Amino acid sequence: MRFSQLYVPTLKETPAEAEVVSHKLLLRAGMIRKLTAGLYTYLPCALRVLKKIEAIVRSEMDRAGFQEVLLPVVQPGDLWKETGRWEHYGKELLRFKDRNDRDYCLGPTHEEVMTDLVRGEVRSYRQLPLRLYQLHTKFRDEIRPRFGLMRGREFIMKDGYSYDASVADAEKSYQLMHDAYHRIFMRLGLRFRAVEADTGSIGGNFSHEFMVLADAGEDTIAFCHNCQFAANVERAEVVEQEVLEGVVCPAAQAVPTPNAHTVEEIANLLQVPTTKVVKTMILTADGKNVAVLVRGDHEVNLIKVQRLLGAESVDLASPDVVEAATKAPVGFAGPCGLDLPIYADFALKGQNDYVTGGNAKDTHLMHVDLNRDAKITAYGDLRNITTQDPCPRCGGQISLAKGIEVGHIFMLGQKYSTAMHATFLNEEGVEKDMIMGCYGIGISRILAAAIEQNHDEHGIVFPPQIAPFNCILLNLDVVNPEVTAKVEEIYKLLCDMGVEVLLDDRDERAGVKFKDADLLGIPIQLVLGKKSLAKGIIEASDRQSKVKVELPIADFVKSYTDYQSQIWVNWSTQSSSL
Amino acid sequence: MRFSQLYVPTLKETPAEAEVVSHKLLLRAGMIRKLTAGLYTYLPCALRVLKKIEAIVRSEMDRAGFQEVLLPVVQPGDLWKETGRWEHYGKELLRFKDRNDRDYCLGPTHEEVMTDLVRGEVRSYRQLPLRLYQLHTKFRDEIRPRFGLMRGREFIMKDGYSYDASVADAEKSYQLMHDAYHRIFMRLGLRFRAVEADTGSIGGNFSHEFMVLADAGEDTIAFCHNCQFAANVERAEVVEQEVLEGVVCPAAQAVPTPNAHTVEEIANLLQVPTTKVVKTMILTADGKNVAVLVRGDHEVNLIKVQRLLGAESVDLASPDVVEAATKAPVGFAGPCGLDLPIYADFALKGQNDYVTGGNAKDTHLMHVDLNRDAKITAYGDLRNITTQDPCPRCGGQISLAKGIEVGHIFMLGQKYSTAMHATFLNEEGVEKDMIMGCYGIGISRILAAAIEQNHDEHGIVFPPQIAPFNCILLNLDVVNPEVTAKVEEIYKLLCDMGVEVLLDDRDERAGVKFKDADLLGIPIQLVLGKKSLAKGIIEASDRQSKVKVELPIADFVKSYTDYQSQIWVNWSTQSSSL
Repeated sequence: MRFSQLYVPTLKETPAEAEVVSHKLLLRAGMIRKLTAGLYTYLPCALRVLKKIEAIVRSEMDRAGFQEVLLPVVQPGDLWKETGRWEHYGKELLRFKDRNDRDYCLGPTHEEVMTDLVRGEVRSYRQLPLRLYQLHTKFRDEIRPRFGLMRGREFIMKDGYSYDASVADAEKSYQLMHDAYHRIFMRLGLRFRAVEADTGSIGGNFSHEFMVLADAGEDTIAFCHNCQFAANVERAEVVEQEVLEGVVCPAAQAVPTPNAHTVEEIANLLQVPTTKVVKTMILTADGKNVAVLVRGDHEVNLIKVQRLLGAESVDLASPDVVEAATKAPVGFAGPCGLDLPIYADFALKGQNDYVTGGNAKDTHLMHVDLNRDAKITAYGDLRNITTQDPCPRCGGQISLAKGIEVGHIFMLGQKYSTAMHATFLNEEGVEKDMIMGCYGIGISRILAAAIEQNHDEHGIVFPPQIAPFNCILLNLDVVNPEVTAKVEEIYKLLCDMGVEVLLDDRDERAGVKFKDADLLGIPIQLVLGKKSLAKGIIEASDRQSKVKVELPIADFVKSYTDYQSQIWVNWSTQSSSL
Repeated sequence: MRFSQLYVPTLKETPAEAEVVSHKLLLRAGMIRKLTAGLYTYLPCALRVLKKIEAIVRSEMDRAGFQEVLLPVVQPGDLWKETGRWEHYGKELLRFKDRNDRDYCLGPTHEEVMTDLVRGEVRSYRQLPLRLYQLHTKFRDEIRPRFGLMRGREFIMKDGYSYDASVADAEKSYQLMHDAYHRIFMRLGLRFRAVEADTGSIGGNFSHEFMVLADAGEDTIAFCHNCQFAANVERAEVVEQEVLEGVVCPAAQAVPTPNAHTVEEIANLLQVPTTKVVKTMILTADGKNVAVLVRGDHEVNLIKVQRLLGAESVDLASPDVVEAATKAPVGFAGPCGLDLPIYADFALKGQNDYVTGGNAKDTHLMHVDLNRDAKITAYGDLRNITTQDPCPRCGGQISLAKGIEVGHIFMLGQKYSTAMHATFLNEEGVEKDMIMGCYGIGISRILAAAIEQNHDEHGIVFPPQIAPFNCILLNLDVVNPEVTAKVEEIYKLLCDMGVEVLLDDRDERAGVKFKDADLLGIPIQLVLGKKSLAKGIIEASDRQSKVKVELPIADFVKSYTDYQSQIWVNWSTQSSSL
């Protein structure tokens, strides 16, 4: 492909709309353009990357024995009513009516539609397992679409579904996908980690997320240095620590705390460590209000609260509710005298002499003994794990890292098959609900995640496995007939070798060509100009390391092949699941 | 691929819902399943065919210098308001609101979105021509989705768009696509015809449809035996014939015509040929009522009426309107005394002594001279061409054939670029509107059209170019270890040769295997059983001709390769544009 004939409108300036690196670079490299909030057009270079990602995903899905199908984007509301998700899914499910006033939605996921297909076909255990997948467009009406392809509304996804006759078989399907996902992310040339995860609105028994490690990740993952444990902090359980007897606690005492709003400000003012301050949050769970207490240096985990309460939804209570419950402005809630069920994190148990809110304006209480001065309904695991906590599996050292969720696999059990009567006759002729799993990969998000993980101040650094081209060949002297003739010869040679080469044949300054080549992130740059032609060499450089080497023109086929192999090998050894 | 591991749920019975052959066979062959009206799921065999169609389309689009991009399915209403199509497109445009109450629609076509992309990028004539395309999902909320994939609501389409600086360049883009489409339909192994067509709701200056010839086609095409002329009857102009002086016409006379409703019944009752009966239709054009007259044996063409009137829309008037205008029940409208603008087809000119409706219940008029007894506003070309009409280009013999529209190319001119201010600076620095063309191919409809054109009483007869597999290998004795060992050897050989082979390894009766192989339409059937193994041969048969040959196992690679080549050559010589 010739640069002069490729539609790749690179930009010198970064558009103001872009907040994260991948969004900035995708715009600047002429790979995407915004249509409107959360909707993007993929230009030719982006499409080349997406197709490579899709090809790797497809080959590993096929290898795992899953079969490709294609389901409609538009889905009838009736199926979603069967599972109850028509009401519970929230506004991300974009609902509308067709010309005949029937309910439809844009598919954010396809459990209902796939299960409808399968229940229409499967009668007997002999037809199971049935393992299907598709690669297609999804739509989620995000409240705040942002970060370009990281959180768009319309996006490309691979979603797979397995239907099995027994839990053991279903676990086999799940493991097939777990292994396939490992192979996929290794082949994509990414550094990633599979972590235990919450099942969220998809539901089911257990799940794993596949995280691309990158500072811009919206998720935090906790992992152990000693064993295989790794989990989303949403999910990672915190082990209840040995109970320490506290000192005898003086009587509780109200103190004025004007102008002190944060935990740190309170701790400073009252000269206590933040571990001795209790944060009290008023929450609304399925319409009922509760209070939750965590230590001042800890973060409450709403998913854990939700799980402890067995609630459908948990949110921060509105200011009205907080003021009515505490009889004080927002910011001074405390457990003493509070007429709500109170749930406290394990870390608060067995110690005393805490500072809490005073349920009165500009007031806190010192010397609080929670068991003496408050009515704790229950203690539980209600906070995010920290690096001070031991590994819940082996007691080893925990570290935290940022990750971008690019894959998620779920053991769904019978949630959907029971609701939708997706049954089969087992070997005894008894009707049973199928056991189901579902398995997603965000194809377009991988494009963004790969850039978040791999870039430098000059632009994108694509892993060669998914780069839009294998190499870019820069003609530094397009007006010089000898240089151009040799460049054309090398270009033809590379094409004949099956190398995907982009020839920069534009009549532009060398600086512009180098800048664009760096920006586009093509793994290998080959440069030919008057000087190098005179020396009989082509300058090659590795986009990642920026290290330059000289390839002899006389022995180009072999020297280039070896050079490219070495760069691929380098990347393959970097990509890892740790 | 092994049949036992392929999800291909063939059916013995034809589902009652299916009306046309392609729909019946796609369901029976386990290639598609219905989700709901006009929405289908593609199962693995269908997806294999679609991918082959897409690959051919893609390669010829690339060859023509068009570049692939990918645009969102969901489109902002604001762009459609710019071109006025938000109001004029009709209910096929499925409109809805997102969670922020903004107008959106599902893209039935992408002129607006593509032009929005291009106007944001192009400043100078140096950036033109810009020729882009995509392969993606489209949605049209058809009033009566039917015939399976022939007229679905969600479908797969290739849509291309060209932006040029001059009419001459735009015509070059158009010709590139015209030629590419010829190559595409030839390579798909289909018998097709490019015809002049109406531009419909897309608009523009002129257009060509590409029609797959098949009896089930919803379109009728007219073509000349003497010259290259071919057109959709919607479009084919009728030449005004030499005016013949009529005989002197007696005075008009009302006659009772109870129980005579059709043209044929009136002609029989009154003992005149149908060419002497005038059909009068009351139409509503942009809210105004008009009458249109055509000869009894002719069919009115509403698109021609619309063009003559310069109207946005033309429909049959409601019964209320007809009764008010004619002061009679529906069925007795006539031109005499009618207080509406009256447009008459050319064929009625210059003759007289007609029978017309009497504008009174159960009454017609005989001996009507239109010029004497009625007030004709204008004569024009208002009907479909017939085989009695001469070719409008050369006067030659016209024939009619049925076709399925699978491609449509449009010279759009500046319709969209002017409305959306898609401009560029020309060589003199003057701002001009771009000249635009658009080019569609119905990918999923080709799957159905190929089957409508190629099937027999046993099932589908796929052209080898798009068949889901190159050949199917039937093991007739799966319990016989020697036969099975040889079949596996042949299967491995075929795989190694790069042949896409489906091995029917199921423990089923031979009859079931032959039936499924025929139904699926795979071009070559290879059969191995005890008898043929003893003879040292494999029976091969051509799905199209049903002719059987014996391929020696000893020389299998060469004999199979020659055999497959011959079958492909046979199909290639059949596919044609005439």
